[in-house]
Amino acid sequence: MTATDAERWRELGQQLRVDSVRSSAAASSGHPTSSMSAADLIAVLADRYLRYDFDRPEDPRNDHLIFSKGHASPLVYSLFKAAGAITDEELLTFRKLGSRLEGHPTPLLPWVDVATGSLGQGLPIGVGVALAGKRFDQLDYRVWVLCGDSEMAEGSMWEAFEHAAFYGLDNLTAIIDVNRLGQTGETMHGWDLDSYAKRAQAFGWHTIEIDGHDVDEIDEAYAEALSIDAKPTAIIAKTKKGKGVAAVEDKNGAHGKPLDDPEAAIAELGGARNLRIDVGKPEDNAEPHVFETGPLELPTYELGAEVATRKAYGDALAALGAARGDIVAIDGEVSNSTFSEEFKKAHPERFVESYIAEQQMLAAAVGIQVRGWTPFTSTFAAFLSRAYDFVRMAAISRADLAICGSHAGVSIGEDGPSQMALEDLAMFRAVHGSTVLYPCDGNQTAKLVETMADLDGISYMRTTRGATAVIYGPDEEFPVGGSKVVRSSDEAVVTIVAAGITLHEALAAADTLAADGVAARVIDCYSVKPIDEETLLGAAALGPIVTVEDHWPEGGLGEAVLAAFADAPEHPKVTMLAVREMPGSGKPAELLAAAGIDADAIAKAAKELVG
Amino acid sequence: MTATDAERWRELGQQLRVDSVRSSAAASSGHPTSSMSAADLIAVLADRYLRYDFDRPEDPRNDHLIFSKGHASPLVYSLFKAAGAITDEELLTFRKLGSRLEGHPTPLLPWVDVATGSLGQGLPIGVGVALAGKRFDQLDYRVWVLCGDSEMAEGSMWEAFEHAAFYGLDNLTAIIDVNRLGQTGETMHGWDLDSYAKRAQAFGWHTIEIDGHDVDEIDEAYAEALSIDAKPTAIIAKTKKGKGVAAVEDKNGAHGKPLDDPEAAIAELGGARNLRIDVGKPEDNAEPHVFETGPLELPTYELGAEVATRKAYGDALAALGAARGDIVAIDGEVSNSTFSEEFKKAHPERFVESYIAEQQMLAAAVGIQVRGWTPFTSTFAAFLSRAYDFVRMAAISRADLAICGSHAGVSIGEDGPSQMALEDLAMFRAVHGSTVLYPCDGNQTAKLVETMADLDGISYMRTTRGATAVIYGPDEEFPVGGSKVVRSSDEAVVTIVAAGITLHEALAAADTLAADGVAARVIDCYSVKPIDEETLLGAAALGPIVTVEDHWPEGGLGEAVLAAFADAPEHPKVTMLAVREMPGSGKPAELLAAAGIDADAIAKAAKELVG
Repeated sequence: MTATDAERWRELGQQLRVDSVRSSAAASSGHPTSSMSAADLIAVLADRYLRYDFDRPEDPRNDHLIFSKGHASPLVYSLFKAAGAITDEELLTFRKLGSRLEGHPTPLLPWVDVATGSLGQGLPIGVGVALAGKRFDQLDYRVWVLCGDSEMAEGSMWEAFEHAAFYGLDNLTAIIDVNRLGQTGETMHGWDLDSYAKRAQAFGWHTIEIDGHDVDEIDEAYAEALSIDAKPTAIIAKTKKGKGVAAVEDKNGAHGKPLDDPEAAIAELGGARNLRIDVGKPEDNAEPHVFETGPLELPTYELGAEVATRKAYGDALAALGAARGDIVAIDGEVSNSTFSEEFKKAHPERFVESYIAEQQMLAAAVGIQVRGWTPFTSTFAAFLSRAYDFVRMAAISRADLAICGSHAGVSIGEDGPSQMALEDLAMFRAVHGSTVLYPCDGNQTAKLVETMADLDGISYMRTTRGATAVIYGPDEEFPVGGSKVVRSSDEAVVTIVAAGITLHEALAAADTLAADGVAARVIDCYSVKPIDEETLLGAAALGPIVTVEDHWPEGGLGEAVLAAFADAPEHPKVTMLAVREMPGSGKPAELLAAAGIDADAIAKAAKELVG
Repeated sequence: MTATDAERWRELGQQLRVDSVRSSAAASSGHPTSSMSAADLIAVLADRYLRYDFDRPEDPRNDHLIFSKGHASPLVYSLFKAAGAITDEELLTFRKLGSRLEGHPTPLLPWVDVATGSLGQGLPIGVGVALAGKRFDQLDYRVWVLCGDSEMAEGSMWEAFEHAAFYGLDNLTAIIDVNRLGQTGETMHGWDLDSYAKRAQAFGWHTIEIDGHDVDEIDEAYAEALSIDAKPTAIIAKTKKGKGVAAVEDKNGAHGKPLDDPEAAIAELGGARNLRIDVGKPEDNAEPHVFETGPLELPTYELGAEVATRKAYGDALAALGAARGDIVAIDGEVSNSTFSEEFKKAHPERFVESYIAEQQMLAAAVGIQVRGWTPFTSTFAAFLSRAYDFVRMAAISRADLAICGSHAGVSIGEDGPSQMALEDLAMFRAVHGSTVLYPCDGNQTAKLVETMADLDGISYMRTTRGATAVIYGPDEEFPVGGSKVVRSSDEAVVTIVAAGITLHEALAAADTLAADGVAARVIDCYSVKPIDEETLLGAAALGPIVTVEDHWPEGGLGEAVLAAFADAPEHPKVTMLAVREMPGSGKPAELLAAAGIDADAIAKAAKELVG
């Protein structure tokens, strides 16, 4: 470092502050003070340590800079301006309708990997990117994550600390901006840097405590982080919120609002500057690792055989992994239940064990797909509710994720309601752009697993614990948005719409009904979202409908069916069978019967509708 | 301790093991090996340290014993048998249909505070109970939480560690059963007790490392825990999964299944025993603290005034707190946004700051209501998705929780999608027995806040960021399950169903339509669940319907309306207006317009429906 470096960094820091104040003033909202605390940290990082080609954001050798404290978006955008990626004119579109400079960063900007703004997500996602660098890309890029001190209260941060150390991610640096003040007051630890350091050390990290406004100390900290082997580094920086402007510096009550007098603040900061940061580019010529592959040989199952769709999921995923080197599997310490263990056995080098840390599991998947890998993530469907905020944010990140939830519904049996997903269809339907699939047999599952690998956005597959009969041949196709009419006749007077476990109950009900002289049509809605509106509209025109699902009545298959013909001119009567009382333990068949979603209940409902 | 004590504890431990093996064998499922590792820990605790009157589970002075590792339910039930609370005959109903001895513990049993089985929840809930003991009850009961080592990977555990230390909960003891083996293999830390101890110490806990099968060491550890002031204690116990039966002891692959040869195992454990534990009862005569109260003076707002429903929430909660000493407020470091700060200002002694730890926030609420207090929990509605698994489990716990999510929908404006709840209605509707409320004005909000305090189960209120016009007088009543027809005429040819922010857009649309000669009915569905089926059925008979919501189309108001008349003989055509594209930043009115849910969009949809 030279005196010139230090002087330039101090000036750059002031410029980033000024531009944060300016953009927030133009927007009449935003978080300038949270940006000002971290400006020096980012100035030194971008000027000396970051390796990033702003002209080639897709370059696999680029470093990754993630603002886990996404509300410091003015700082992100001020950096992009300083790096020459956006103009000053665009900077001042911050938070305006149609601008890609949203209130919190999103990947509408090509230099932003993931959306942040829900705290405690950037670091866990950074762990995923760093893991991809080490294990899959096998490239030397580094991952830098700017964290807020308030978000250190999120458990997901400690999942990230645990995993980063466990996987020895020395390519990951967390920069903790300890500005002491949260939204409403002081954090639990204020400026007690040691409290963060001892926690991080206990979790296996190297730590460095610095004055986050001393550019020399900042410089030395980054250099030290680069030198550490086998463990991640946390730079714990004491900073002042609103640094540089007396009216807001280290003042409570100045969170999340523009400065009252931006002109005075800009003057106090030394006025506007137009320094350009010449961000270093990746220097080597390495290419991402490519895993060897062979032909795709999806598993097939004999008609009439009994196979659990969760087993078919694992078999198909292993087969897909053999054919495609981009496929990665992640599981939450239940791979022998979800059957992702089949992938683990076949491709251990592409399997990530997330232990019982569902938030980190989803975040790792998001981070891994940032680098172009195709992650399949699995656990019990019920426990995906633990990571719902990560799924929600992944949609805002425009992430492509394939997620599988096993052990859905009361049909799991004895384990009881804590292990029964009864809200997962509602949860995943209410994700923007999502696909929700619910196969009923092995061959259908295998084909849909293959399909999921190429879907955009969040795709979810619900699998069943128990073995069910194979009803489709291995050559049948199951397009997303389609359905199968699995029982039909010209005399059909009622339609039963089912999926997954209840499809088999529906078929049994149709047999019972036929024996009683009532012809029923049965539709397999394996694609719950998008749903096959055309087929359902056709059925709706022909008579009443029974929907049946192993799920609460709200937000699942039944309501998806109703929505399909909401604006049709005429509607049939629809009886919605679903789980309406809190289940307990019991045998699967007992619980299906107790919930009123078994073959008998379906047949009864159908008869009442037609008779 | 005497030689007799030690001998009795060893025998008791064996009995708890035998009964765990027996009940799991009778069920042909269950987790005996996870129970066997902790049997000695529980034997000593129950025999010497626990203060609990099994005949009076409602006694406020009772200790609380929570199995955070809920899969060790055979151990729970074996303890209850040894304590004389259940018979051996009932023990053997484990996991059978209709038995209250479910696969994982639930409060169907009067001695179980909360349902567990989703890992990482028992300790955070225990923090809530301990906090209630210190701050609200002001009683000397202790909270003992048996934790698994696998669940230490859950971030929620570290939220609990952080909060327990921050609040100085020396009435809380975590007993960590380090049996080394998870479901699929070894945990990250195996038998490295120090790795847990140094983490817990870094978070401010006192720690004790012991051999979890040495009853002397166990006894000393509990005695030491009782002696520690101002900080919680973690007893970190090295144990063996399946302890005592060579076929499964410390063996991988023996998780979650009954023993292959239970008879041989029972013999190896020394055979069945029928020892009775005489669990100590609470000794003092203290009564829970009672906070002083006055009359209820709910806030009222003038017709036509502009007030944000989030502000009315805070005002009403403060008023309710003045009238009812059982009311407690908990917030996730955004009390100046949710306006729970009004309660905090008025009743600081009953306000709990959870910082940015939404899982711990919900868990604290669950723990606090265990002791009969009435918690109101608030944060941005979007961030409640962080705690969905806790809400799901709270329903299984039969917990009574009032939850408020502010800043819902695109109408928040500039902050962008990461801060916009667009899935919260779907999420909370799909909770068993839940109530979902969405007020549109200040007076309605105040009345509904009062109502929520007495509702069973999970109740959710969605509030709006911006100020909206007061349209109801202060004396209007808003029963759960009701609605208000706020615009009506005999000539009405179309019905608009709205709630919250969109109710105001619907009213403006009705004005526009009226000016164009189209009479519209407007229904305020403030009770989204249960929904007012009767009123909606009546409207449905009269013509087409437009539903409009600031939410994704899935699982929200629109689908709730469709479900209300699913089985009616005839249906009207329904146009569902909802947020269908990923929003960005912008002004609230711009974003409502961009999403197609503003007055213009409603008027247009209504006109298209009526032709």
